[in-house]
Amino acid sequence: MKVIVDGMGGDNSPEAIVEGCVSAVKELGVSVIIVGNKEIIDTELSKYDFPDEAIDIINSTEIITNDDEPAFAIRRKKDSSMVIGLKALKEGIGDGFVSAGSTGALLAGGLFIVSRIDGIERAALASVYPTIRGISLLLDLGANVDCKPEYLKQFAIMGSIYSEKVLKVEAPRVGLVNIGTERGKGNQLVQKAYELIENSNLNFIGNVEARDIPAGVADVLVCDGFVGNIILKLTEGMAKSLFSSLKEEFNKTFQSKVGAILLRKQLMNFKGMLDYREYGGAPLLGLKKPVVKAHGSSDAFAIKNAIRQVKDFIEMDVINIIEDDINASRNK
Amino acid sequence: MKVIVDGMGGDNSPEAIVEGCVSAVKELGVSVIIVGNKEIIDTELSKYDFPDEAIDIINSTEIITNDDEPAFAIRRKKDSSMVIGLKALKEGIGDGFVSAGSTGALLAGGLFIVSRIDGIERAALASVYPTIRGISLLLDLGANVDCKPEYLKQFAIMGSIYSEKVLKVEAPRVGLVNIGTERGKGNQLVQKAYELIENSNLNFIGNVEARDIPAGVADVLVCDGFVGNIILKLTEGMAKSLFSSLKEEFNKTFQSKVGAILLRKQLMNFKGMLDYREYGGAPLLGLKKPVVKAHGSSDAFAIKNAIRQVKDFIEMDVINIIEDDINASRNK
Repeated sequence: MKVIVDGMGGDNSPEAIVEGCVSAVKELGVSVIIVGNKEIIDTELSKYDFPDEAIDIINSTEIITNDDEPAFAIRRKKDSSMVIGLKALKEGIGDGFVSAGSTGALLAGGLFIVSRIDGIERAALASVYPTIRGISLLLDLGANVDCKPEYLKQFAIMGSIYSEKVLKVEAPRVGLVNIGTERGKGNQLVQKAYELIENSNLNFIGNVEARDIPAGVADVLVCDGFVGNIILKLTEGMAKSLFSSLKEEFNKTFQSKVGAILLRKQLMNFKGMLDYREYGGAPLLGLKKPVVKAHGSSDAFAIKNAIRQVKDFIEMDVINIIEDDINASRNK
Repeated sequence: MKVIVDGMGGDNSPEAIVEGCVSAVKELGVSVIIVGNKEIIDTELSKYDFPDEAIDIINSTEIITNDDEPAFAIRRKKDSSMVIGLKALKEGIGDGFVSAGSTGALLAGGLFIVSRIDGIERAALASVYPTIRGISLLLDLGANVDCKPEYLKQFAIMGSIYSEKVLKVEAPRVGLVNIGTERGKGNQLVQKAYELIENSNLNFIGNVEARDIPAGVADVLVCDGFVGNIILKLTEGMAKSLFSSLKEEFNKTFQSKVGAILLRKQLMNFKGMLDYREYGGAPLLGLKKPVVKAHGSSDAFAIKNAIRQVKDFIEMDVINIIEDDINASRNK
């Protein structure tokens, strides 16, 4: 198995990306193809020991940044690490693709270059969401801000398959994010989506209120990309704000400083619960090949975990299963 | 000034409601009319000392609960404390209304009995939202789950007026909740709403991402009721989950327990930051009279603060200002 990695994407490229790739080939038994400036990547690789045959480089001369307009960048920057990587994926040079670069560009490139599975109306960006009972899978996260009910049903199917196969959840509980738990609640979109998902073969647990999301009441949380993006970013923002005010409170007196020192380990555990690095990246579901978006600020550890995720994505044959289930659900 | 209070609504009625009313008349210099079972309210009132003339009772025989279908309950339970209270408000027997009862019923009752200000397309439910820099006002919270751009513009106008007059914020910064800060981001609704709000006279700061909401970047946060409800409830749910996992962590070892004791005061401060009780209730904006929804689990302190809020709502002439500004914005 060969995983293609965008060597030039993300805040910590190429150093952290290369280091993560080296860890991955040593620990996960995968081969990696790094796309990037060959000279720079070679220099980085020379810092590490690893089996030579496990890492290849494909040279690229351009980089897509977060400032680039996504669709335009994908069309114009043909020598960018992202475009070259996605083309190599499409051509079968590798089996999956990881990038910590621009989310918008990766979405656009995934659609233009790799393209959607037949029968899939829209590809969705999914992410694991840390809860106090483990993790949930949340989708869509912003790939589709204006959705039709049928899209949400397909997100539910794809999310359920990914949760079962990659996150190893048995019979994932699929919930529809809504403003009340009762049937019939919500806007027109979720009311209609409810009926569609209810009539699928999924383990549908009905509507999930936002207040119950952090408690881990569902394994798969389905919503449109606008709402999903709000949920993910609000969670990040709250965690950040709460930590900073806790820290401020704890620095107020000598006594509280001592208390905080005694609680150091527990506070770190607590912080770790919300650490995106543990959970790898965000899969793009609905494309013909496995593509995973790693967090823009990924370090080597996060990159290795994203590669692990794409490895499972490939090994568990998620894409063929999605294709079969989507076609089965359309022929019903 | 006379504030009408629903004596039978909320988890802690009538005890906490009556106690809150007594505090309000003593501390805020308002008169209160409590609507509820006269015998029960009288018994509760007999526990306290207060100027007799400051509290009246209007008898009611029915109660609307959270299990009642809102619109149906408002039409059928004509002797409920909520319906009688709202009718008294409409007839001018009191100047404002506070209820800790069913949100849906209060919304339905507000629209049917009190009715919308001329020119207002939809009434919105607003709430103060605790941030690390103070409070923001978030609207709509679920009164309108399917919105048109014009509604959001009116929410922005009403929210700005309320923020300035009742929350005493000078030139409130109005932000549109969105999935990116750049102009042109988001779904069709917010893209069009952006243009409308931009062309108003408000202090519009543009799009606000959900991750920046807890940091207090805007004084007024505008969104449709589906998104607003998700934001408010996710915030509640996260605060609850984070506290419970902090508590669990802190109970793990002897050392951490000692640390937690040393930090007791700081932890309480921290928790207080997210305490809804401090902030009173949620105003219903766009009705012809001041109506405030107190939290369902309000204690006496929260009820007193909700009465304080409706007092400012009345004194600052918010409704006439909304009417004037909405008409001015429509004639532009």
